[in-house]
Amino acid sequence: MKSTIAALTILLTAITAAAQTAPPSNGERLMAHALESSGAWETLQYLTDDIGPRLSGSKGAALAVQWTTARFRSWGIAVRDEKVMVPHWVRGEERASLVSHNGQKIVLTALGGSVATPVRGITADVIEVSNFDELDRLGNKVRGKIVYYNNPMNMDLVRSGHSFEAYEEAVRYRGAGASRAAKYGAVASLIRSVASASLRDPHTGAMRYDPKLPKIPAAAMTIEDAMLVDRLIRKGERVRMHLVLTPKTLPDADSANVVAEIRGSERPDEIVLVGAHLDSWDLATGAIDDGSGVAMSMEVLRLIKDLGLHPRRTIRCVLFMNEENGLRGGRGYAAAHKDEIGRHAAAIETDAGAAAPTGFSTNVSGEALTSLESRVHPLLARVNAARFEQSSEAGADISPLTDAGVPSFGLISDPLHYFDYHHSPSDTLDKIDPKDFAADTAALAALTWEIADSTEPLRAK
Amino acid sequence: MKSTIAALTILLTAITAAAQTAPPSNGERLMAHALESSGAWETLQYLTDDIGPRLSGSKGAALAVQWTTARFRSWGIAVRDEKVMVPHWVRGEERASLVSHNGQKIVLTALGGSVATPVRGITADVIEVSNFDELDRLGNKVRGKIVYYNNPMNMDLVRSGHSFEAYEEAVRYRGAGASRAAKYGAVASLIRSVASASLRDPHTGAMRYDPKLPKIPAAAMTIEDAMLVDRLIRKGERVRMHLVLTPKTLPDADSANVVAEIRGSERPDEIVLVGAHLDSWDLATGAIDDGSGVAMSMEVLRLIKDLGLHPRRTIRCVLFMNEENGLRGGRGYAAAHKDEIGRHAAAIETDAGAAAPTGFSTNVSGEALTSLESRVHPLLARVNAARFEQSSEAGADISPLTDAGVPSFGLISDPLHYFDYHHSPSDTLDKIDPKDFAADTAALAALTWEIADSTEPLRAK
Repeated sequence: MKSTIAALTILLTAITAAAQTAPPSNGERLMAHALESSGAWETLQYLTDDIGPRLSGSKGAALAVQWTTARFRSWGIAVRDEKVMVPHWVRGEERASLVSHNGQKIVLTALGGSVATPVRGITADVIEVSNFDELDRLGNKVRGKIVYYNNPMNMDLVRSGHSFEAYEEAVRYRGAGASRAAKYGAVASLIRSVASASLRDPHTGAMRYDPKLPKIPAAAMTIEDAMLVDRLIRKGERVRMHLVLTPKTLPDADSANVVAEIRGSERPDEIVLVGAHLDSWDLATGAIDDGSGVAMSMEVLRLIKDLGLHPRRTIRCVLFMNEENGLRGGRGYAAAHKDEIGRHAAAIETDAGAAAPTGFSTNVSGEALTSLESRVHPLLARVNAARFEQSSEAGADISPLTDAGVPSFGLISDPLHYFDYHHSPSDTLDKIDPKDFAADTAALAALTWEIADSTEPLRAK
Repeated sequence: MKSTIAALTILLTAITAAAQTAPPSNGERLMAHALESSGAWETLQYLTDDIGPRLSGSKGAALAVQWTTARFRSWGIAVRDEKVMVPHWVRGEERASLVSHNGQKIVLTALGGSVATPVRGITADVIEVSNFDELDRLGNKVRGKIVYYNNPMNMDLVRSGHSFEAYEEAVRYRGAGASRAAKYGAVASLIRSVASASLRDPHTGAMRYDPKLPKIPAAAMTIEDAMLVDRLIRKGERVRMHLVLTPKTLPDADSANVVAEIRGSERPDEIVLVGAHLDSWDLATGAIDDGSGVAMSMEVLRLIKDLGLHPRRTIRCVLFMNEENGLRGGRGYAAAHKDEIGRHAAAIETDAGAAAPTGFSTNVSGEALTSLESRVHPLLARVNAARFEQSSEAGADISPLTDAGVPSFGLISDPLHYFDYHHSPSDTLDKIDPKDFAADTAALAALTWEIADSTEPLRAK
């Protein structure tokens, strides 16, 4: 025991001495700067509080492009806007009531891309199904009815840290539910909001129509309203709803990805992309989805510039437009840069919130990952972000690059509460703890720097 | 040690034998029946799910009077409706946006009793104060402006079990804020929703005007929106809001208290009142406020009737109308029954939610309380509801009785989450755990029975 303590004391003294004498590495300096600076928070606050919601095609989205571009420029960082055309869907009035139950209000929100109801609305019986099999069994019995997919998130999965798996499972009815119901003659399609908490706030999100089938309106009820309809139907009561939705799809609008970069000192044609999506849903200011990712990604470049560092490879920040309802920015970037996709040393997307960091998802594996981990672990462990998880997709915007074999990474933050707020009116700045957010930024800066400044190349599996 | 175990074994054997031989008391039978029965839950579910919101003067409130009256009758319990006239305030359109910040939407709800804005709305700068002192110091500087009271609940109080104290402190700006601001020429008054949790849902509640001052519109922003406005103002930015509220105050409407009773076998002219309020706010179905209290109070009579019990004193269930925005039911009952107030042996109100029970508040003290406690503790302890707390007010509806010296009680359930939902759109059935609710009902039934069937009288302090 005594000798163990003696040995530890010697070791500790040696480490302390080394720490005192060795100057901090650039990665360490970047992390320290990220943890002490309020720069990323100020970016996030302006983007969300001052500009507000940023749905593709909206004034907010246009302002976000202008402002982030100007902000890079004010930092002395080269920046350009790369044009993309985006869908322009505009939410209208949305209201519903149970005509069968004293006209009680049902709180819901249109799904992104939904067509409108007739001006006077639809009045129809609600028929509930738990899944597509049940719908198929009902078949033409849903004709003339409003189909309601009762699709709760699996909260056991959420509580055990697998929120995204629970989301994937529940969200399929949001995307495909309307067309699947329209096939059998349904007049509208409703889901239960895909959410892990609710105070009667609805969660929107994109849906898509099968072009071969009639387009019917689609909306998400709050969890409370979905549970109410379910309880009434289970009691054997006829539930008849009046539904008014007046969204519009306008012609595609001009928009842009914002592309900023710090040129590499030794291998300028090799690119490490760090990015996030600039658009948000319209119901809130998009603080966790994805203002935080935008602010962190911008901050990585600002911190490097501020410290006067010169990475070996080029670090490029891309703020993608239209992740939420079209992915035009992600696809547009890949198309515009197709000749240099092979020169992307890595692509790092941040689009999973801003709770405390845990690590990164990646398509890099085997020896390449082991080698990378050995280099970055000492840095990332400082903010508990040293865990790498295998994944074939690290982020939607960079998915065309990932699919082309680019080593890809996605920052993972604690997912427990992500779907409490995601796509709902409550995705606002107050949901983010500035300390967690600074730790996220530090982790992102460290990984970006280490890949960009490494003498070794990185390979996806 | 050995002898202690031996002694305990003898004691346990004796208790077990007694339990096996002595038939359960009526209080025990009532509690057991409450815990195993789904009757109260069915009442609550119909009241909230099928009838829905029940604001005074609304169709829902009228249906609630009809249905609860019919339900007592169907149980074979004598019941009558006692007419009261109630205020009839109707919420209209309500919307706001920050014209200074890209027209961002501000989510808010009119306070009950508020006047409307002009049809086109009000557009004015927002000025923030933390309390009335700060308002008084600003004085005429608020002229032409929208005054925003930034009045967060003290969450340390909430977390330490004192939600109602935190509520009382914060809610004063809801009641008096508009007139206090109007005194200095403000054009509207806003508060931060008085709530202990938020997913961007606003919490309404009653406000009152000083008849000597101009009436200005009053609303509650969600916590998120209130925090946004606060952050912008703290950054030194000018915040200008467009506000549209179109509520109306219609002529007073006919309504009623529902009064049911089981006549006492020995002292029929001595009354034990058990009650709750039948009205709710309009934003939700009022499950915790106060559908649960109504269903529990009705169930006490149903359980007694169902078991064929005959209490010494009369047990009277009163479902009060208009607790939320006028207290006409509570005052009307006291006025209509003024000659028998002195014959009320006790009044027990349930209006504090339906989480797990902890005990009762009461104005009974000293020897009278000690004697009561010794009788009811063995019963109430079975559902962890044996704690009595001194309070000068046990419930708003029974306050005229309490003030007249009637021994009063209020069921206390765990208050931790009560103000997460209170007066907001999320006060819905799913917030109630049927097991906690059954325990509440059992506690209420036990206390009511023991007081009504006691040979001893009860005195308030």
